[in-house]
Amino acid sequence: MIVYHLYSGGKDSSLAAWILARLGYEVRLITVSFGLLDSWRHAKETAERLGFEHRVIYLPREILERAAETAIADGHPNNAIQFIHEKALEAIASLPEVERVSDGTRRDDRVPFLDLPKARSLEDRYNVAYIRPLLGLGYRTIRELVEKLFVVEIRESEELEKSDYEVELRHLLRERGVDPLTIFPKSHYQSRVVGWKNV
Amino acid sequence: MIVYHLYSGGKDSSLAAWILARLGYEVRLITVSFGLLDSWRHAKETAERLGFEHRVIYLPREILERAAETAIADGHPNNAIQFIHEKALEAIASLPEVERVSDGTRRDDRVPFLDLPKARSLEDRYNVAYIRPLLGLGYRTIRELVEKLFVVEIRESEELEKSDYEVELRHLLRERGVDPLTIFPKSHYQSRVVGWKNV
Repeated sequence: MIVYHLYSGGKDSSLAAWILARLGYEVRLITVSFGLLDSWRHAKETAERLGFEHRVIYLPREILERAAETAIADGHPNNAIQFIHEKALEAIASLPEVERVSDGTRRDDRVPFLDLPKARSLEDRYNVAYIRPLLGLGYRTIRELVEKLFVVEIRESEELEKSDYEVELRHLLRERGVDPLTIFPKSHYQSRVVGWKNV
Repeated sequence: MIVYHLYSGGKDSSLAAWILARLGYEVRLITVSFGLLDSWRHAKETAERLGFEHRVIYLPREILERAAETAIADGHPNNAIQFIHEKALEAIASLPEVERVSDGTRRDDRVPFLDLPKARSLEDRYNVAYIRPLLGLGYRTIRELVEKLFVVEIRESEELEKSDYEVELRHLLRERGVDPLTIFPKSHYQSRVVGWKNV
């Protein structure tokens, strides 16, 4: 039972990967990149520290460009992030060897999030099972499991430390002369998993 | 980390209990009864075969009576089942020792199902975490895990084999001179977990 798990190196996708492994799945982590930056390397590093197999898949740059246009038009990144996430899931689900695709999206997330019709559509279009180990967990349960399992590094948002879509999206916005701070929330703390606790 | 898990002895609540145990929780199974029948004994028997701690909690008969009235007025059992499920979760969540409550509700269930505002309301009113291990799993994933884990007995619907709310609700309807077959779907196969596979 192999599952391909969309992975950023963050707490949520790391916890989801651990749950999948506990359920008996052979977990293959996938980080998406648009080829602008090598920010995927942070996810790879965390994956290695946690002992998971990891690979990078490259998505067409047009997807990032369309996301950037959406973010500029909207003045906020939500629809852009949602769009990239759906394209990333579709890219993984469309690989011929993939029967199961998963991610770390949560019950309390607004984006990225696939509602029930979208989740079923993904499964039906690509003939895959879509597994979201965190969907039934609230923030309190996620926090208690993360604290039990992982050593987490928290610092102020510095994009080069992360491997999520936001990093390349911010980069492309800057290339187009748009200050990401006009679109993304001003300043917030980011966290990154750096290893297992007590292992 | 103790979790109190609403349990019927069926496939879904058994799978959810297994997942909770795999995540490191100390799982205490709870079956609700209204004291009309001893149908809870089937859940207890399955719990014992699976090696989980099990107890019964009794809910006020007024809840079942109100559910029966709703089912009669509606001509179908959905709102009645939803009502009983919410009352069962509240009864568990309100126990002073309970910090975590869980159930086997699924992504593809229509009832019983707590939407996000209701799930958060349960957590906030009783200061508990509400955990639904199956929420992020589709039918295909649930089927593959159930097949891997459990010996399941399938037969045509016979209420005395089960421990879910439906059994006592049907019984009360009959006591009131209402044929349950006018309210519940005619005939369908029921399944019951009878033990672990390969253990």
